[in-house]
Amino acid sequence: MMNPTPKGDLKTGGANMDVETYMKQLGKAARAASQAMARADTRAKNQALLVAADALEREIDALVAANAQDVEAARANRLEPALLDRLTMSEKTVLAMAQGLRDIAGLADPVGEMSDFAFRPSGIHVGKMRVPLGVIGIIYESRPNVTADAAALCLKSGNATILRGGSEAIRSNQAIYRCLLEGLRAANLPEAAVQVLETTDRRAVDLMIRMKDNVDVIVPRGGAGLIAHIAENALVPVIKHLEGNCHVYIDESAILDRAVEIAFNAKTQRYGTCNTIESLLIHAKEATASLERLGPMFASKGVELRGCPRVREVLGDSVLPATEDDWYREYLAPILAVKVVKDLDEAIEHINQYGSHHTDAIVTENYTRARRFLREVDSSSVLVNASTRMADGAEYGLGAEIGTSTDRIHVRGPVGLHGLTIEKWVVFGDGQIRR
Amino acid sequence: MMNPTPKGDLKTGGANMDVETYMKQLGKAARAASQAMARADTRAKNQALLVAADALEREIDALVAANAQDVEAARANRLEPALLDRLTMSEKTVLAMAQGLRDIAGLADPVGEMSDFAFRPSGIHVGKMRVPLGVIGIIYESRPNVTADAAALCLKSGNATILRGGSEAIRSNQAIYRCLLEGLRAANLPEAAVQVLETTDRRAVDLMIRMKDNVDVIVPRGGAGLIAHIAENALVPVIKHLEGNCHVYIDESAILDRAVEIAFNAKTQRYGTCNTIESLLIHAKEATASLERLGPMFASKGVELRGCPRVREVLGDSVLPATEDDWYREYLAPILAVKVVKDLDEAIEHINQYGSHHTDAIVTENYTRARRFLREVDSSSVLVNASTRMADGAEYGLGAEIGTSTDRIHVRGPVGLHGLTIEKWVVFGDGQIRR
Repeated sequence: MMNPTPKGDLKTGGANMDVETYMKQLGKAARAASQAMARADTRAKNQALLVAADALEREIDALVAANAQDVEAARANRLEPALLDRLTMSEKTVLAMAQGLRDIAGLADPVGEMSDFAFRPSGIHVGKMRVPLGVIGIIYESRPNVTADAAALCLKSGNATILRGGSEAIRSNQAIYRCLLEGLRAANLPEAAVQVLETTDRRAVDLMIRMKDNVDVIVPRGGAGLIAHIAENALVPVIKHLEGNCHVYIDESAILDRAVEIAFNAKTQRYGTCNTIESLLIHAKEATASLERLGPMFASKGVELRGCPRVREVLGDSVLPATEDDWYREYLAPILAVKVVKDLDEAIEHINQYGSHHTDAIVTENYTRARRFLREVDSSSVLVNASTRMADGAEYGLGAEIGTSTDRIHVRGPVGLHGLTIEKWVVFGDGQIRR
Repeated sequence: MMNPTPKGDLKTGGANMDVETYMKQLGKAARAASQAMARADTRAKNQALLVAADALEREIDALVAANAQDVEAARANRLEPALLDRLTMSEKTVLAMAQGLRDIAGLADPVGEMSDFAFRPSGIHVGKMRVPLGVIGIIYESRPNVTADAAALCLKSGNATILRGGSEAIRSNQAIYRCLLEGLRAANLPEAAVQVLETTDRRAVDLMIRMKDNVDVIVPRGGAGLIAHIAENALVPVIKHLEGNCHVYIDESAILDRAVEIAFNAKTQRYGTCNTIESLLIHAKEATASLERLGPMFASKGVELRGCPRVREVLGDSVLPATEDDWYREYLAPILAVKVVKDLDEAIEHINQYGSHHTDAIVTENYTRARRFLREVDSSSVLVNASTRMADGAEYGLGAEIGTSTDRIHVRGPVGLHGLTIEKWVVFGDGQIRR
């Protein structure tokens, strides 16, 4: 099984027919590879990852050089600095990528896990077996490290994958792909288990998200516009990652030191991550004490506060008034909306109404309110007495994540190896028939 | 929270605006109800089901009378006999519906199940909590019993549901709905937890499948055309039930008596069900012995066989030759395609290529081949030494099922209470922050 060789004209956007043919070939090759991957043994999958990791390290100069070409072209095309930054690969990036592959090789194989077996009155012994999803299409921006991470997670979970990275990263992605291919070959696994699109034609994305016979799920990683376009047009199921409007709620009986530390960390440890908080809620009885400490801390970090009237009473007019719109915002910036609430009910209602059901935390010493928060806050991660920044694949022990699902079916929150698999039913019988 | 009262003109197809407004109201009411249902306690949910069951029995005459009106109207409109049969409710149907609700009340509540908790190096204690999906839209044909079953499963799993049954059953569905409403009221649960569309306007379906803010998943139960239309046009995720092209494979080392009994049961116990086999595969060494017994058995039941050349050698020209197309067919009728294969590899390849990944069984005494079949056959249910007819919610212990998923994400196979829920992440901390 060969990765279909694209026509030269594909890269510059050939005739419609060519992209379609190319994508069909890719899809068929992926489907065939997925069947072999589903039965590939753990040792072979790990070997592919370890050989690919070694190849990345050996080819470190070539990788950095290929990336430098991408960066140069992107700079000539006046790509934004933030995007240039994500595109750029240093030697350190490559070493981290290689280590990522080794880490994934070290994770337990989710395929073949059996659970919930029980005898039924008929005598059949029924349970579930975890199996790969099949073919996973990943559509992402110009972040070359995603190529290695996503391919590795799909490979370890027994899936075939089709990767479509941002066009600015095409040389970097192809160079990484060659290392992955070396791993697949060494382990005698089908080469089409990982395919990286060799075309930058945008029609390829629209074709891929409608290839329901040969693609089983699409994981888009990118801006809201890209994800909305994919969700609107896909015929293949999509595991989406939309915005994170996250909250910390400081409850009446919180330990003040802990509450202050968690709220500060959840906002300022990094501004651009989806599990960073955008709003802070504080119980009325804790408002003065916690705001008097948090106000100067946020000021020292240059975090702009937008508060309800009560917050402005405590901290003064230097705090901008929060508008209704602020409660909905995902700033991804040093801005924080702050509201004083009268009780847990108001906090939960606020989070469920304005939040994005992503990640929310309560700081409390009260048993009943902790339990209520855990149950009633409808978010993919709910935390008691921990920073929202703890909600990610590495901290949760998934080893790595392919994204964070904001969907409500299949998987919520950080998506690791298990999120790339599904359970089928298995029955052991002794001749049982239906009466 | 009231079920929005529809305008009188809706039933005869009002202005576009009216259906849209009606569906928006329904969606909003469902979303609000879903939040209350998510935190409803098990006792209240069970009470609603038990009171509704009592109401169904008490109203048995009114239910049968409402249904008789539907049947009369459908007969006047020359509905097909098979569909008339599904539409018709006897006293026995109503009693079975009531018993169904009581059975579901007796099942363990899936909401709040916690699993996989473990400490992480940071000290956080991380695991998962099972929660409802939210709002579930059910679109089905004129089978009134689905109204009770589907509503009950959604209710027990803490979801709000919007039911859109076939227009021929509207009086029956409304009568059943009134009993469900009585249950919700008695248990002090929101009335909009179950809503049955009071319009037969077909535009309501197209609106519902695109209400992504207020509907979380669509479960269509109906013909392939309806499901394809929904899958193509939905913006809301869909749990689909497409065709069942199922197989029994009689392996080299099968116990002959058992193999014959399983194959015969899997085809003839019922013809119209999705887990009935459409093709029988037999290892070459077992072909003569098993066909000589199965041929007369199938003949006595009037089952038409369509065979490969080897089958016709054994059973003669009374067996029609099978065409390539036969291996793909879901007959739902007393017709069976039969193929002799040279080994397990050919059997697995045939099933994965021609089958619909639904339900497939092997009859064997061989350990290694049983294991390979379980792992390599890519179907939602794989069975060893049991009839494919054993693959359903009741036999698996789900209590009841809302359908059988042929999708590859979220849930495969029979969908019971667990399939209507999802896990969120829960973190217990002691002040952990991200370093």
